[in-house]
Amino acid sequence: MRVAVLGGTGSFGRALAARLAAAGQDEIVIGSRDAARARETAAELGSGVTGRANEDAVQGADLVVLAVKADGALDTARAIASALGDTPLLSVATAIEFQRGVGALPDPDARSLAERIQDEVAGPVVAGLHSVAAANLDGEPPDEDALVCGDDPQAKALALDLAARIVAGSALDAGPLAGARTLEGLTALIVNLNRRYKAHTGVRVTGISTTAE
Amino acid sequence: MRVAVLGGTGSFGRALAARLAAAGQDEIVIGSRDAARARETAAELGSGVTGRANEDAVQGADLVVLAVKADGALDTARAIASALGDTPLLSVATAIEFQRGVGALPDPDARSLAERIQDEVAGPVVAGLHSVAAANLDGEPPDEDALVCGDDPQAKALALDLAARIVAGSALDAGPLAGARTLEGLTALIVNLNRRYKAHTGVRVTGISTTAE
Repeated sequence: MRVAVLGGTGSFGRALAARLAAAGQDEIVIGSRDAARARETAAELGSGVTGRANEDAVQGADLVVLAVKADGALDTARAIASALGDTPLLSVATAIEFQRGVGALPDPDARSLAERIQDEVAGPVVAGLHSVAAANLDGEPPDEDALVCGDDPQAKALALDLAARIVAGSALDAGPLAGARTLEGLTALIVNLNRRYKAHTGVRVTGISTTAE
Repeated sequence: MRVAVLGGTGSFGRALAARLAAAGQDEIVIGSRDAARARETAAELGSGVTGRANEDAVQGADLVVLAVKADGALDTARAIASALGDTPLLSVATAIEFQRGVGALPDPDARSLAERIQDEVAGPVVAGLHSVAAANLDGEPPDEDALVCGDDPQAKALALDLAARIVAGSALDAGPLAGARTLEGLTALIVNLNRRYKAHTGVRVTGISTTAE
């Protein structure tokens, strides 16, 4: 499918685009506020990857991944809303605050960023990949599952397809979009685990037999 | 250590007490609003387990596990606050709402139940075990890790000790109490995964080498 990765010049967006390019099944468009930077990153990622300004990147995409930093996520959603139309959007953004001596704190907002993004766009929003760290996307697909939450079955199926290509584990449907707050909070937990155990952690769901998936 | 399990006559509390009894390292007191029911459950769980009314169960405990249903968690915390004093409390409670055709939804409150419980008691509150299902505590320790969040290092260490006895995986320190909202939200995700994949799921954190723990 054709995948636009907005924020594709940032650490997670770029790592995601690189992994998808390595998987070789998608046509990838890097989106950025700065079209020149998007083209630059695309050129570094090799053939099959192009770069465009965000509003142009979403044109003709089957799935748009919103991988911009949390503080720019809502603004970017507003800026692309008209070009996006009813194209599905996968939000991987998370607001994290670091408090010295305490650790990473999750977004204090009662509603997830993904749900607030859904308020801004007509296309169905799905949330996912929050427990997959950019550093773990370097090299081979990581020993992790990818969790996805959403209310629209078709949009969720597209996001699960994409997620399955970036982890060695499974892409798993974790329920309605209301669960996005938990997925977004996982990023802070992962950061704290990484600091505590000097590790690059991820999540695996146990108890699911591969035949049942 | 001496562990009081409040809500020890409920499905999770009872399963937790049974597993701790099987591990054989703790003195376990089942707490309930109804002392007779607490004694009944304790008798079923065998030697080393006693049953008392909640306020009596917390007396002399090294760690109190609050395993009552979410809608009674705050009331129970208020009721035992005076008897609890500064004894550490491990909150495993989660508020979940089921919406027909949609799935399990996490607590819409901006703050975790554990943080709200901390408002009611003087002892340090730790949150944990939310991804461990009662059904998975039957039989052998499950192939899962147990995540614990808290601000008080000593209370967290006690909770991690306890958690390590109930899972086959590791008990992991996932950071400050602010992460409790995410832990509590994991229960809804686990429920949705169980329904979707007809499984008894749990969580494993990948990327941590056993030597680093």
